[in-house]
This record gives sequence, structure tokens and C-alpha cells, in this order.
Amino acid sequence: MANGSVLETITLEEAQQVIDAAAKKAAEIGQPMDIAVVDAGGNLKAHARMDGANIGSITISINKAYTAIAFQCETGDLQEATRPAGPIHGLSDAHGGRLVVFPGGIPLVRDGRIMGAIGVSTGTIEQDQEVALAGAGAY
Amino acid sequence: MANGSVLETITLEEAQQVIDAAAKKAAEIGQPMDIAVVDAGGNLKAHARMDGANIGSITISINKAYTAIAFQCETGDLQEATRPAGPIHGLSDAHGGRLVVFPGGIPLVRDGRIMGAIGVSTGTIEQDQEVALAGAGAY
Amino acid sequence: MANGSVLETITLEEAQQVIDAAAKKAAEIGQPMDIAVVDAGGNLKAHARMDGANIGSITISINKAYTAIAFQCETGDLQEATRPAGPIHGLSDAHGGRLVVFPGGIPLVRDGRIMGAIGVSTGTIEQDQEVALAGAGAY
Amino acid sequence: MANGSVLETITLEEAQQVIDAAAKKAAEIGQPMDIAVVDAGGNLKAHARMDGANIGSITISINKAYTAIAFQCETGDLQEATRPAGPIHGLSDAHGGRLVVFPGGIPLVRDGRIMGAIGVSTGTIEQDQEVALAGAGAY
Repeated sequence: MANGSVLETITLEEAQQVIDAAAKKAAEIGQPMDIAVVDAGGNLKAHARMDGANIGSITISINKAYTAIAFQCETGDLQEATRPAGPIHGLSDAHGGRLVVFPGGIPLVRDGRIMGAIGVSTGTIEQDQEVALAGAGAY
Repeated sequence: MANGSVLETITLEEAQQVIDAAAKKAAEIGQPMDIAVVDAGGNLKAHARMDGANIGSITISINKAYTAIAFQCETGDLQEATRPAGPIHGLSDAHGGRLVVFPGGIPLVRDGRIMGAIGVSTGTIEQDQEVALAGAGAY
Repeated sequence: MANGSVLETITLEEAQQVIDAAAKKAAEIGQPMDIAVVDAGGNLKAHARMDGANIGSITISINKAYTAIAFQCETGDLQEATRPAGPIHGLSDAHGGRLVVFPGGIPLVRDGRIMGAIGVSTGTIEQDQEVALAGAGAY
Repeated sequence: MANGSVLETITLEEAQQVIDAAAKKAAEIGQPMDIAVVDAGGNLKAHARMDGANIGSITISINKAYTAIAFQCETGDLQEATRPAGPIHGLSDAHGGRLVVFPGGIPLVRDGRIMGAIGVSTGTIEQDQEVALAGAGAY
């Protein structure tokens, strides 16, 4: 075994605070959500599927968080540029099927560094974004 | 949209109780773990990667829980039968890469019905099983 | 765009020093190699395929480095446990096809933290390990 | 073992010169980049992720270089033809997820033969193209 352990960029306690804040907002607006938090390497740190949230959104929420790390931006920032007439139309096809190019994924930033990301899915993109923002605000 | 929502077989609150009990045991034995809970459909309900747990065990823990649903047994029950001389050697190849055939995945049973499953990974298989049992005991 | 950039755990300069040291050792023993370095999140930082090294080892070298991150150990440490009679036989099948369970992948450790990993492939496992050690020694 | 080794179409030294020239241009314009070089067979020869470049662009840069080999053209040449109204709309779906149809991938040509290709990603497509051209110019 190696003489050390992999650097943690976000703690489980922090990830759960982010999820709790997002879930609280989701409850307020009456829309159950899948909520995922990944670390700075894009690897899952914690996930919760609220009762009533979509099974299909498990993967979408995780991939929204991954995409926010992968491109260092909110997933919604990729939306216009990837539309049929946009400059990077076809981005997802070029990456193998893990990218989400609509709102709901937001980086978690501390001191100018992206330390992780939250991804939210099941509602409308406006609801997903609102809940993701609430989660990110708790970091 | 459909006039209803998918049947929930395990609540998020229950899943989190299972994860909390497992994490408590993991802390007791000094081995951080990836802990996943899936519902009766084998779909992820909640996941937590404790600080220091393996990145590679994210998938293993989720797939242990999935496997416990998929074959209605503990993952350890599949171990001998899938060895090279066993009767179902090659099981994983027949399923496309989601099966785990060593201990750490345990069904969550209520009134004779498997309502979900827990999967634990990062430690030895004995540790994984011990922590999974602690989690299952809280259901 | 996000107000920050993803935390870097290993710099490109460090990764290239690791690759250069590994390539020097590979040249000494007369065995061209694929050499990959990943960061603490398991994501590729740099790769070099020496002239004469295997095309098939591009992926193997990258996945050796990934595996060293994913399980916080040298890839060779997984070899006995994953053999047909071992306790975690079937590990690779449970993870979806990115794990390497023979020597040549080594974590890059600083102050007790795994900050990245090197993966080497094309030679015998003894040669791969020797070259990976030379690379890791330069970090 | 075979009595020979696979034909090399681009040396590692040449690939690194291409990457160095591209990285120099990227530094000049203040945009860190993922830079990949593949050989005439479309197989990765060398890759570098500059500090601050996108994790998601690892794959994009490699696939841009691959695409330039695969269709013997610059990736930007595929952009209009693959848009929804274009004659080969759906090209990516026909290939399984490795094609990039926007600028940043350029063949490396010597004496009328494509010997390899460079792929660059993280910036705008104009920046990616400019940096890829700088790299190709060093071959």
C-alpha cells in the first residue's frame, strides 16, 4: 500500500451541508430533486435522491456536477454555444457521453479555486438551477 | 407528465439512517468507506464517500448494492459459484460490467421483502461486510 | 463562467519531470514505454509514448495511473487479491473496465498525500515497475 | 513476439516539439490548453494538460487530433456539413463518440503525407485553432 492517502478537496461534511441546503430549497419550492456533489477531480463525494425525484436524474445530477468540474463553469454556460448553430455544437458527442449542457451544475469555489461542484436534476432547468445555487451558497 | 410518481420503496430518510449507521461502524474500526444505498429497483438512493475512502470504490459500492438487488442475495453469496471452477463462472461477463461477486453488498429486508440494498467498499472484504451489516441492521 | 479554476494537484512541470525520469530509465534498460501521469483526481495530466512502445499500452499506462489513484496503492498490490482464488476476484468486472491489477502503476506522494500517479506499460511487469519507480522517485 | 516493431510515423521528439510550440502560443495568449498529438494511425503519441486547462478537454483534445486523422482534414472543416441542415448531420452518431466537428484539430503534413495530427482544447474555438496552428507549424 502507498504511504499516504489521496488528497481530499471537499470533505463529506461540506458535501452534506451543500446537499442539505439544496434539499431544503427543493422542499420549499415543492420539487423533489436528485442532488450530487463531486470533488475537484470530478469524482462523486455524495448523492441524495429525494423521495419522488427521478431515477433518470441520478446520472444527470452526477454528470451535471462532473461537467461543472470538467469545463470549470456552470453547465448552463454551455447551453448556447452547443446549440445547432453554435460554435461548439457536437461537444457531447466528442466526449463520450458524460456532459450536460443545460442548467443545474455549479462549481463550488473557495479562494478562487474550484474545489468541487453540485449537480441538481428532476425539475425544470430554472428549478434545478435555483436549487443548485442554494446548495452552492452553503459552501 | 404522468398522473403519479414512481413507487418509492425506501425513503431518503431511511437510506440516510442506513448510511449513518454504517459510517459509525466504519469510524469505529478506523476504515473510511464508500457507502451506497439503492432502492428495490436497484437505483441509487444515496451515497457517501467518507474522507479517505477510495475513489475507485464509488462504483464498487454502488454496484455491490445493485448486485444485492439484482440477484436477491448478499454479494458474498456469489463468490464461490463465480470462481473459475464454479457453476456460474463468467457471470459478470454475461451482465455487462455491473456485478460484484465478493462481500460488502447486503439486501435491506422488511416483512420478507427486499426493499433496497446497501453496498460498502474500500476496506478488506471482512471490513466491508461488517460495515454493511451495521448499516443493514439500522433498517 | 465560474469565478475560479479547478485546483491543480500536480503541475505540468512536475508531471514532465516524472515522465523524463521514467523515460531515462526506460532508455537505460532498452525498453521503450508508454508513460502516463494523472492528478489526484485520476485525470490525465501528461502522457508520452516512446518510439517503439506499444499502441495498446497507451490505455494501459493511463489506466495503471488511474488505478493507483482509485485504490490508493500500487497496481501490483492488487495482483494477488484479484487472482481466481483471491478475496476480490472479479474486481475489474465490478468497475466497468478501467482497472489494472498488475505492476506498473505507482502513487506520487508528498507529505503523506497522494497528489497524482504514474503508470508505465509495454515491457515486462518487472520492467514497467522499475521504470515507474524511477519516475515516482523524481517527484 | 514478432520480428519487428510497429512503423512509427511521428517520433516522440517531433511530437514534443509540436506540443512545446503550441504551449508557447497558448502562454502568449494567456489561455492554458490541453494539447494532444497522435500518429498517422490516430493513436496518442503525447499529451500535456497545461496548468489551468480543462479536465473535460483531455478527451476533446485527443479526439480532435484523432478526428483530423480519421477524416484527413481539419476538424473545423467538418463543422458546417455536420450541422442539422448539413449533408452529413449525424456523423458523430455514426462513429461511436470520438469525433469532434469544430476547430482545433489539424493534420501534421510532410511531403504531402499526413504523418500525425494535433488537437487543442479549452479556449474558444478561435484560440484552439490558433494554438493548434502554432503547433502544426513546428512540424
